[in-house]
Amino acid sequence: MEIVYSVKDMQHTADKLKHSSLSIGFVPTMGYLHDGHLALIKQAKEDNDIAIVSIFVNPMQFSPNEDLDKYPRDFERDEMLCEQNGVDYIFYPPKKGMYPEGFQTYVSVDKLTKVLEGASRPTHFRGVTTVVNKLFNIIKPDKAYFGKKDAQQQLVIKRMVKDLNMDIEIVGMPIIRENDGLAMSSRNKYLNLDERKSAICLHRSLDRAEELIKLGVNSADRIKNEMRKLIKSYKYARIDYISINRINDLSELDTIEKQNTLISLAVFVGNTRLIDNIWI
Amino acid sequence: MEIVYSVKDMQHTADKLKHSSLSIGFVPTMGYLHDGHLALIKQAKEDNDIAIVSIFVNPMQFSPNEDLDKYPRDFERDEMLCEQNGVDYIFYPPKKGMYPEGFQTYVSVDKLTKVLEGASRPTHFRGVTTVVNKLFNIIKPDKAYFGKKDAQQQLVIKRMVKDLNMDIEIVGMPIIRENDGLAMSSRNKYLNLDERKSAICLHRSLDRAEELIKLGVNSADRIKNEMRKLIKSYKYARIDYISINRINDLSELDTIEKQNTLISLAVFVGNTRLIDNIWI
Repeated sequence: MEIVYSVKDMQHTADKLKHSSLSIGFVPTMGYLHDGHLALIKQAKEDNDIAIVSIFVNPMQFSPNEDLDKYPRDFERDEMLCEQNGVDYIFYPPKKGMYPEGFQTYVSVDKLTKVLEGASRPTHFRGVTTVVNKLFNIIKPDKAYFGKKDAQQQLVIKRMVKDLNMDIEIVGMPIIRENDGLAMSSRNKYLNLDERKSAICLHRSLDRAEELIKLGVNSADRIKNEMRKLIKSYKYARIDYISINRINDLSELDTIEKQNTLISLAVFVGNTRLIDNIWI
Repeated sequence: MEIVYSVKDMQHTADKLKHSSLSIGFVPTMGYLHDGHLALIKQAKEDNDIAIVSIFVNPMQFSPNEDLDKYPRDFERDEMLCEQNGVDYIFYPPKKGMYPEGFQTYVSVDKLTKVLEGASRPTHFRGVTTVVNKLFNIIKPDKAYFGKKDAQQQLVIKRMVKDLNMDIEIVGMPIIRENDGLAMSSRNKYLNLDERKSAICLHRSLDRAEELIKLGVNSADRIKNEMRKLIKSYKYARIDYISINRINDLSELDTIEKQNTLISLAVFVGNTRLIDNIWI
């Protein structure tokens, strides 16, 4: 495994791999890897000749009041996990390497980013699409892997890739969960023991929604109300949003549409903002 | 020479060329080719194994009150000129091929597009950077060629390529002029005989500016005033802007900086908006 720090070196390496007709699978991350990331890495390795992981805590996708500075970092541990999981290259650029002086170009996806996470975090997705666009141009992957925990992110990136004719396949991978159902996230580290217990409310509320749908309930309002009630019974939990949307365009749904429904939510547990979702 | 209509076919062709280690030189155009385009094509052919020209009148870079519908088109003539000048592929996509339903992704360069052409045409550059980004992802060129007549466009595209780490060299080529000095442009076709005579005022005013600088004048205001006076003496000419800027960041200059000054202007001649510039 090799660690690459500069954009130029990474592009040069990608070119060499391409000239040798080796396929590249790419997993973009902000580091502090957990089993969710490792599932993406394993799939990337399985599908491609070469697996490349980027580790970059992207300042552009955090707003000034968010957790950029305290976002957890542990490069040595990440390095070890990558090595153990067959990663061929880690791309680990410094901030200045990604955003040199005078930087002023942005990639933005319009409608899909106005709702859900985009409504709560208005500049977030512009930061995500800009950095992912850059990373795609640097790594030149054949396939790139994203977890479905960030459901909207995955849809937004698919849209960007399609609209800008980037010749890359976006692979969405299932959410990986702790034993009690909490979706894995680097941010789970922020939770103290009491909050950790409450954090299960996100998954529980989604389970409840699924159960109701199985029972024949298809009113979005009724499902959201039940979810709200359940979450409110947990200490430390404060709902940011609960939303039921069409998967293809994220328009809001009044009635469940089988195979085309995303139920998603964001909940503050203490000061930590967690997200989760299911696709129906 | 081959004409390619679909994005997929063009990407497939580009991949095949790359796998054969053939370098690609790319000239993006809106068609209605003139000697300015042909100079770019010749250079692309000289520098690379393969020359690809795109012909696409990009609706996104026109505002509703601009000349999209009447923009001159003559594909048969363009095809002949490309064939004669050694072009290997023309990429000639339909509008729907470039902007399918649901399209909603934009690439924008911030500060550089707020002045000059961007101030007069606020949505213009977003249209240019978005389509050029797409074309770069479709054609996958090693080098792309742009004329210096669109001076700001060239700087904006260079910025986009740098900021988004697109692995492409942008080559800027000198302005090609008619015998009397009028910069070549597909829009010159709109001019009637009288307007055609007046259109020379752009080049004349730039000549005058150069002459003043050679005489030791370095006040931007004085130079702009002299240019204004000269242009006003031409019938049918109405100034949109005359501006003197630093080349690197397009900030406005009070005093000429040798090697780093762009003098540019836009003038309506009759209803036709023409632009021209010199680099000092």
